[in-house]
This record gives sequence, C-alpha cells and structure tokens, in this order.
Amino acid sequence: MIIIGERINGMFKDIARAIKDRDPAVIEHWAQKQQQDGARYLDINVGPGSANPVEAMEWLVEVAQEASDLPLCLDSTNYKAIEAGLKKCRRPAMINSVPAVAAKMERVFSMAQEYGAEVICLAMDEQGIPKDAESRVALAMELVATADAYGVSPDSLYIDPLVLPCNVAQDHGPEVLDTLRQVKLLSDPAPKTVVGLSNVSQGTSNRELINRIFAVMAMAAGLDAAIADANDEDLMAAVATARILLNMDIYCDSYIDVFKKG
Amino acid sequence: MIIIGERINGMFKDIARAIKDRDPAVIEHWAQKQQQDGARYLDINVGPGSANPVEAMEWLVEVAQEASDLPLCLDSTNYKAIEAGLKKCRRPAMINSVPAVAAKMERVFSMAQEYGAEVICLAMDEQGIPKDAESRVALAMELVATADAYGVSPDSLYIDPLVLPCNVAQDHGPEVLDTLRQVKLLSDPAPKTVVGLSNVSQGTSNRELINRIFAVMAMAAGLDAAIADANDEDLMAAVATARILLNMDIYCDSYIDVFKKG
Repeated sequence: MIIIGERINGMFKDIARAIKDRDPAVIEHWAQKQQQDGARYLDINVGPGSANPVEAMEWLVEVAQEASDLPLCLDSTNYKAIEAGLKKCRRPAMINSVPAVAAKMERVFSMAQEYGAEVICLAMDEQGIPKDAESRVALAMELVATADAYGVSPDSLYIDPLVLPCNVAQDHGPEVLDTLRQVKLLSDPAPKTVVGLSNVSQGTSNRELINRIFAVMAMAAGLDAAIADANDEDLMAAVATARILLNMDIYCDSYIDVFKKG
Repeated sequence: MIIIGERINGMFKDIARAIKDRDPAVIEHWAQKQQQDGARYLDINVGPGSANPVEAMEWLVEVAQEASDLPLCLDSTNYKAIEAGLKKCRRPAMINSVPAVAAKMERVFSMAQEYGAEVICLAMDEQGIPKDAESRVALAMELVATADAYGVSPDSLYIDPLVLPCNVAQDHGPEVLDTLRQVKLLSDPAPKTVVGLSNVSQGTSNRELINRIFAVMAMAAGLDAAIADANDEDLMAAVATARILLNMDIYCDSYIDVFKKG
C-alpha cells in the first residue's frame, strides 16, 4: 500500500497560516518530512478558509514541488482550483476527487485525460454514500465505465469506497472491506483502491490504533493506497509488516527501515 | 476471534518444571492469568520432555480445570494422552490436532464423537503442508467430509491452514489468507478456522508486531480463533480493535477493557 501524505491541508492551522502569509517554509518542511517518512504522493488541500482557492492551490503546488519530487494529489471540490493546480504540475498528478455524478465526472475525466492525471473516484452519488457493498461496487462500475468513455484507463483510477467513523457507522466497516475485494474484479486491468484512513477513527479514543488496524485489514482485502499520516510511526510499521506478510516486499530483519527508504 | 491461551505448554521451562515436580501453583497461575487476559480456551500441552505424557496430561487437566472454568484444548500428537485428558475433562474440550491422514482421522474423530469434543484439523497430509490455497482447501474438504462420516459436524471443526514463518516461507502468507476465506464456503454450517499465531514470526525480529498484524489480517479473512499469547497486551488490543471494525462488538470508548471482560 502506498501512502498519500495528508499533512499539507489547510485544515491544519500551520498550513492555513502558511497559505495566508504565503510562507513557504512550513510547506517545504512537510513536503520533505512526509517524503522521508515514506509517503509516495503529497495530498495538497487549501482547506475550507482560503479566500482565493485557485491562487492558493497554484502557490501550494509550486512550493511543494520545489521541495519534493513526489507526485501531487490535488484535493479540492473546486474544479477550477484543481485545473489551475494541474497546469502547474511538472509531473503527472492525481485528482482528488470525483463522485458518480454525471456533470462532475464529465469535468474531472476530461481534465484527467488532458493532463494525464490519475483520479480518486468516490463510491457515492447525489443520494450520498450507500451502506452495502453491492451499491458501492455499482457506483464504482459507473465511474470506471464513464472514465473509459473519456479515454481514462481503469488503472489510472483509485476507487474510494468511503470509510465512515466506526463510532457512528460501525456496520459500514465490513461493507467497505467487501467493496475493496469486489472492485478488483470489475475490469482488467483492475482499478486501484484508496481510502481516507483517518475518517474511520473520527471522534473515537485511541485513533491511531483504529487507523492502523483498519489499514492492514484493508490491505489484506486489496487496498492499494491511503491518504494518511506518514508521520505516524506505528502506522508505517504496521503497513511495512503487512507488506511483508502479503509477500509484497522481501522479508529482512530491518524491513521497517527498508519500507521507508522505498 | 477467540484466543486459545498458549501458555500451559511444557515447551516453557516453568511449565516443564511444574509438570516434573507436580507443582500446581504455576499451572493455576497461568490458567487464571490467561482467563483474566481474555483467553476463551486454555491450550494444554505436556511438552516434548515428559517421561509419562498420559499421566502428565491427566494431571495438567485436573489442575487447570480446578483453577479456571475455561474449556481446555488438549494439544498432543499422542492420542493416548488426548484420550486420557478427555476422560478427565468436566466440560466439552477441543482436540489439538489431526491431519488429513486416514488412520489418524479415524482415531481422532471417533474420540470427538464419543466425548463431544471439537477438533483442530490441520491442512496437511503424509506429504506435508502444501503451498497453494487450493491444495490446503482440498485437504480441509477431506477433513470435513471424514468428520461428517463419524458424526462430527463441520461447526465442531477448526480448520488450521498452517502458518509457516514469514522469514522462510513468505509466499505462504497470502495462500493462508486465501485458504481462510475459501474454507468458509466449504459447507453449511461452515467449519471454523484457527491458526497457531506465533508460528508466523518464528526466528524473526519484532515478533509481536508480526503476530498482531497477521492476526488482524486473518480476522478480516474470516479467522475464528488463534492459539496465542493472551498476555500480549498489544495483540489483545489489536484483536479488540479488529472486532470493532468488523462489526463483531459494539464500539465504545473503553472497548479494549470490554473485550477482555468479554
């Protein structure tokens, strides 16, 4: 499983302040630190409070890719901001995200095709997030088929089954794991899969334990990527261990370090 | 997942000495401690060095069931010792174990039927442990069908796919997880599943991390039970968390304590 580092997000106070003041040092710090910690993409989210999200995204992209050579995951519901970011990206990026809603799929998959971007596809539509795996998989199928019509291959897509907090929607957990397994059977090549990991533990005590246990169970069900905290050492050790046990990396006694050096 | 406490085993020096001296205090301590830590069965194994395994098993059974009301899992390749133990058990016990070998299945399933015991069934035969999931499942099928012919129901069986150390047989890991998933489709009612958890980390560094990550991935694949160290707090916390995320226990903020009191 690859980690999409979640830390460059205007929801965090230091990032919000850095965006407001156009202070690159904080962004550079987190770009480099997440890469060192084992992240393979950097999520870039201007946050909810930005006065001009298009300019903020452009600035974040430029600062982040000066500091790190990781590909960027442009995270916004504002598609003008996404497109502005894509124009600035030197390397192929990831678009985060699109639901199974016709007008949004048209906009996002057109951009993906034009800029050679990958896309995080949400298993939800105008009615929201379904509970059962079958309905989530049906939405994933709609996303895969629509992307294909725009010339975007299934293996450029990351299907997000959408994880809800276990303290309010506990019955969704097994459905999400089932969705991950079934999505891998949708097409050949199969779409990839992703979750926003910290959602599962929103509002709970002992969040990091819940995050890492869910992460490795999801990996066993075929999860390819997670938007997560690369700075969480216990999470990264759990992921490295799961990669060993799933025969994705060769065992050696210092496997955790090896995982981080990637 | 239920924990079969592994600690009353003559492989441990304190247990070997207690058996030799017929000193009940050590056995009582571990019987009670494992129950407090969340074990639901107690594995009882006289170990390799016992001069008279039949008498040693009888003594261990009597001491353990004085100290704890947990059911016992009689662990021996000596079927005379197993039968002697079964005669002493006040509550229905578990027999650990039988491979898919005709003469052994006849002996063990006959005892299981007579004493109302559950049975741990090993996915191996005279040729040893197969690598791929399909061959393991075929052996499980043979075990289920043979047990049925002796009047032992599939839901009295715990199929053990047989976990090997990840540092020498790393490619077995995904096959074991696949076996766990497929075994659940073999019959209705389905057989249960079990692993000897610590096998996966034999000879590795950071054994406890490997054990608990494998445990929760196996739980997500349908694992029902593990012979494991109930005294490993991080393992027990991981198991409790996985039970929450698989919607087997209701979430509450003190869920780890709740699991132990279970």
